[in-house]
Amino acid sequence: MKRTLLACLSLGAAPALAQTSITTLPPPVAVDPTVAALRDEALNNDHYAWDIAEGLTTEVGQRLAATEAEARARDWAVKRLTAMGFANVHVEPFTMPIWTRGAESAEIVSPFPQKLVVAALGYSGSTGPAGVTGEIAYFDSVDALRLAPDSAVRGKIVFIDHHMAPTQDGSGYGQFGAPRRQGPTIASLKGAIGIVVRSIGTDHHRNPHTGIQYFTDGARPIPAGALSVPDAEQLVRILRRGMPVVMHLTLVSQRHEDGRSGNVVAEIPGRDPKTPILLIGGHLDSWDLATGAIDDASGVAIMTAAARHIMDAGRPLRTIRVVWFGAEEPGGFGGKAFAAAHAKDSYAIAGESDLGADRVWRFSTKLSRSDPAAYARLTAALAPLGIVKDDDGKADGTDVEPTIDAGAPWITLNQDAIRYFDYHHTPDDTLDKIDPVQLRQNVAAWTAVLATLSGGIEPGPKQPKRR
Amino acid sequence: MKRTLLACLSLGAAPALAQTSITTLPPPVAVDPTVAALRDEALNNDHYAWDIAEGLTTEVGQRLAATEAEARARDWAVKRLTAMGFANVHVEPFTMPIWTRGAESAEIVSPFPQKLVVAALGYSGSTGPAGVTGEIAYFDSVDALRLAPDSAVRGKIVFIDHHMAPTQDGSGYGQFGAPRRQGPTIASLKGAIGIVVRSIGTDHHRNPHTGIQYFTDGARPIPAGALSVPDAEQLVRILRRGMPVVMHLTLVSQRHEDGRSGNVVAEIPGRDPKTPILLIGGHLDSWDLATGAIDDASGVAIMTAAARHIMDAGRPLRTIRVVWFGAEEPGGFGGKAFAAAHAKDSYAIAGESDLGADRVWRFSTKLSRSDPAAYARLTAALAPLGIVKDDDGKADGTDVEPTIDAGAPWITLNQDAIRYFDYHHTPDDTLDKIDPVQLRQNVAAWTAVLATLSGGIEPGPKQPKRR
Repeated sequence: MKRTLLACLSLGAAPALAQTSITTLPPPVAVDPTVAALRDEALNNDHYAWDIAEGLTTEVGQRLAATEAEARARDWAVKRLTAMGFANVHVEPFTMPIWTRGAESAEIVSPFPQKLVVAALGYSGSTGPAGVTGEIAYFDSVDALRLAPDSAVRGKIVFIDHHMAPTQDGSGYGQFGAPRRQGPTIASLKGAIGIVVRSIGTDHHRNPHTGIQYFTDGARPIPAGALSVPDAEQLVRILRRGMPVVMHLTLVSQRHEDGRSGNVVAEIPGRDPKTPILLIGGHLDSWDLATGAIDDASGVAIMTAAARHIMDAGRPLRTIRVVWFGAEEPGGFGGKAFAAAHAKDSYAIAGESDLGADRVWRFSTKLSRSDPAAYARLTAALAPLGIVKDDDGKADGTDVEPTIDAGAPWITLNQDAIRYFDYHHTPDDTLDKIDPVQLRQNVAAWTAVLATLSGGIEPGPKQPKRR
Repeated sequence: MKRTLLACLSLGAAPALAQTSITTLPPPVAVDPTVAALRDEALNNDHYAWDIAEGLTTEVGQRLAATEAEARARDWAVKRLTAMGFANVHVEPFTMPIWTRGAESAEIVSPFPQKLVVAALGYSGSTGPAGVTGEIAYFDSVDALRLAPDSAVRGKIVFIDHHMAPTQDGSGYGQFGAPRRQGPTIASLKGAIGIVVRSIGTDHHRNPHTGIQYFTDGARPIPAGALSVPDAEQLVRILRRGMPVVMHLTLVSQRHEDGRSGNVVAEIPGRDPKTPILLIGGHLDSWDLATGAIDDASGVAIMTAAARHIMDAGRPLRTIRVVWFGAEEPGGFGGKAFAAAHAKDSYAIAGESDLGADRVWRFSTKLSRSDPAAYARLTAALAPLGIVKDDDGKADGTDVEPTIDAGAPWITLNQDAIRYFDYHHTPDDTLDKIDPVQLRQNVAAWTAVLATLSGGIEPGPKQPKRR
């Protein structure tokens, strides 16, 4: 005992790990049997989520923001949500700049002629069909590029490497995403004619990771692309030979300011319309390279399925609002439009699923401070799913962020991100990457959250079996 | 004891598994200390193989048979083999039909418009730039296609699915490769306007597996491509909706009969030029989609490194001949040309490495019958590498097959193929797929084979340290 305590103190480990007297434990919490039953039904038998993810990715496929494909996806969503028995199903339109991809290629001209696999980043400048040719200027981080004199970059094609590795919480994406997010602007301001970055990803496949970037600080848009990880490693090996490396880069793309997108909104009306609402969602749009199975068909599938399980049990006191946000990928346009349109609504909680379909391993919520009793009930309801509480967590989710910034209490269910950035924003984000068992665990977790915070579910007439 | 024996008999298990008296064991075999030392040096310290695989894939990249890239690869090979101290380094040219890939795409026109990832198969017919459009005729095997009436196929695009799964010995490739090998001919003879097959592969990435096929039996060449596995699964899901599925398929390619290729030959001259030669090799060419790291830069690297370790020890009695065969992928042209050119040479053994770079787990040889003493020495020398003998094995290797057919005794070292068909013939066959530790085990195994069969190595002056 003493040794353990000393070790804990000296290592700064959580004192809770030391054995404490049962008299000092917080009061025991019983899980409401209705909550437990709904959760376990979802865990064992949910098919709503798989059916949505399978249907959306198969019958629509890719659905890039503001394109005709995203419009078809909205139609699909309205039809499916209506068929599932949701109320007030409707589209809330908004406008945004639309960016679309054209022909793209990257070729080493010298010293060792060969093709590399590249994909343009969102809002990349266009080379035009003729492409650009320039010597590669290598940097192993954004800071190395920032520290370089303009003369080392001017007239060249910048290549930024990085060292991202998988993390369970996905935190590598924040830090190691800088080459993609800030690299193009910095390269442009220093006079580069183009930039390629090592894909912000953790795989070793010839599938480049696209993603959004903006030109800020008055930077002129230049062509900006991502090399697949094996291609970036190949370029590093070629550069290590010590000879000048010349690349021919073609990234054709188009941008128009008058794109049209929209959010799809559906509800389970609560017994008391005046009680603050439970808001959950994911995003309907995807990047254009794949069918967006884990980003984010699974997110809208999980949330919709969880709400549907509540509907199966009866009518909640609070209204549950499910949103399939539009145009998240190019910059969270749907989330901003939604918050602006619903500034007067009052929310009991806001949560989003947008980190794939692998199991939820941790959760946190603002309620840990504002409503400790609810926090204790959530903790107890989620523990049987192997979900650990995080007293120090943060709000997460691009789409709900504007609503949370406007005052809505948040809840975050962290999904296991170990393999998420193997597929994220690549041609490989396809249905086979969803593990049906882990998908059901996600549905069970969100069902438990909704049931716990519903204000009580009043059994109604048995819902007809709808898809 | 009795129970075990009975169980063995009743299950037909190998009686050798039952415990036998030590008096009935074959005579013990001691491993020659020189063989063991060379093997273990390669296992622990080889860098020759990695340097060759890294150099060839980085400095040349893809090297499709009979192209200018394969010619550059031959130049690279001659330079490297000479620098490594081999004798008689030279190219033996031959001619062959050359096939090259142009633009390619596959698009579902209806009912759910979307793009699928496709790659043409070798010697595919060309659609021309306009492509062809047709309804999909689905078959889950080549036999299902063979059994179908012509009317079910005529004017349509055939799609053949299959159910290949990984096997350690790679045997799935033989059986499940039929859609690629025979499918196009059968589809053409039945009047199809094109064919796509589920890639002959075991991965789930958007990387199609190309590979060779021929039109036989007088079949007119039609466009023939492979869909990536996720795309094939997507097409199956779309077909399961029960509506007619229409595809627009573009596979542009070119064929000319006057291609030029060649084999690169190098030797360690033996002390007795009249003693039958040890022949080892791999193939220099690759498919055009990737840098051919495991198919087959690793093969030529392993064999060359093994020979180089013998050179490090001194001069063998037998000549060791290392061949980097040309144009294996489009049909083993290099192996046939080599056998024809060397019909008068006499070989003690012929072996090839062409199943990746993962560890050797099993070996077999014709010597098991013709020279049991040598077989016992090989068995003992390879066992410390975890390699099990296979008394019933077969010759293997497209390039050495014609030489073996002409009478050369064969040896086969089976590499672990569990992940080989994840990458085989795809854009993903890149250097990162080679595990340096397993690569060294391969070099150690072939070093042990060469040392065991060398006829004795006479220590010479220490070789200069060459790459």
